[in-house]
Amino acid sequence: MLNYNNQGNWPNGFGKMQSPIDLSIDEQNQYKEFLPISVDEFYQLNNEIDDGTTIRLTGMGNATVFNREFNFKQIHFHTPAEHTVNGEAAPFEIHLVHQNAIGQTVVVALLVQIGNADASLQEIINNFVPNEETDVSINLTEWIPNLANGFHYAGSLTTPPLTENVEWIVITNSPMTVSQNQVDWFVKQFGNNNRQCQAINNRKIEYYENK
Amino acid sequence: MLNYNNQGNWPNGFGKMQSPIDLSIDEQNQYKEFLPISVDEFYQLNNEIDDGTTIRLTGMGNATVFNREFNFKQIHFHTPAEHTVNGEAAPFEIHLVHQNAIGQTVVVALLVQIGNADASLQEIINNFVPNEETDVSINLTEWIPNLANGFHYAGSLTTPPLTENVEWIVITNSPMTVSQNQVDWFVKQFGNNNRQCQAINNRKIEYYENK
Repeated sequence: MLNYNNQGNWPNGFGKMQSPIDLSIDEQNQYKEFLPISVDEFYQLNNEIDDGTTIRLTGMGNATVFNREFNFKQIHFHTPAEHTVNGEAAPFEIHLVHQNAIGQTVVVALLVQIGNADASLQEIINNFVPNEETDVSINLTEWIPNLANGFHYAGSLTTPPLTENVEWIVITNSPMTVSQNQVDWFVKQFGNNNRQCQAINNRKIEYYENK
Repeated sequence: MLNYNNQGNWPNGFGKMQSPIDLSIDEQNQYKEFLPISVDEFYQLNNEIDDGTTIRLTGMGNATVFNREFNFKQIHFHTPAEHTVNGEAAPFEIHLVHQNAIGQTVVVALLVQIGNADASLQEIINNFVPNEETDVSINLTEWIPNLANGFHYAGSLTTPPLTENVEWIVITNSPMTVSQNQVDWFVKQFGNNNRQCQAINNRKIEYYENK
């Protein structure tokens, strides 16, 4: 199982485009518009897996991302958030992994704040069976906002094989919140499972915000 | 210098998305339309380098590729072609490397047939100085056709570091041809410099053709 206390020893034959990173607004790459992402077919989760370090669910759904069609593949969770903003980590981060017809990967990350408990996340918690894979039927309706603000950059998977040239969209204004109880449940089950922030090197980070 | 007679020993910590590959038309992924690529600002070459295994030139230019803006970065040449079509290699392949604002890479490959000598390529040959880097001023006008047919898939760089998740557009109907003399000049200078075709694994290869 992946050991988050021993990240320096993770296999990584890769270069200078690793994730997560600490995000901040670069005036040179700031766009006064919403992120060009729209959900075309709402995401439906049908399989839930205890992968040892987090819960992973697979399902169906479709989104248009920067003018290209992507299929939703899987979703999983990190506590605390992996991407930080100006050095601050949100308590929870959700990764929605997508692929297009030729196998390119876009991960949509939601940085989630404490607030009301989320009903869909509670269904995921209630359906969890340790060490098992279970059939579920859970709809995600408003996790990806229609009018999304946030960051866009090229990085990597945050767990081995840490594959690079993954396209990241990190949404900072999801209306979805989680309760402290829900966060506590994840921490009790899995401990902290955030990879440390990696060097940005000479990457450009785009920021999109409209009001 | 890269040894094309010893490709099995090239450093490669990567996976199942290597390039080049043998291309063929998959009925399931065939589109009766042109490749969505258009040159917005013609490419201008201003620096020519003998990199030991090929000529590499850098310059400026802009293209819209699958609805996203990319900047032209560099161009280089392979004899014979690296990508084959139904097992057949064209005598010459040109790689036009592009990047977008967040550093994603698209390589536009032209599979080039024998015919009239190309004037811009002859300028490149005439400006070549072994082991040197030289300033040049060469315009590429019609190498990427306005109405392009060809393949689209996710692969890798074809020289170390063989980085994966590079987006390939392999154009099969460039109006540009090279003379046998021009091909012979490259072979005499560099020898064969084509990486062998790699396993496709479970990748989907899209094919675009309109008439």
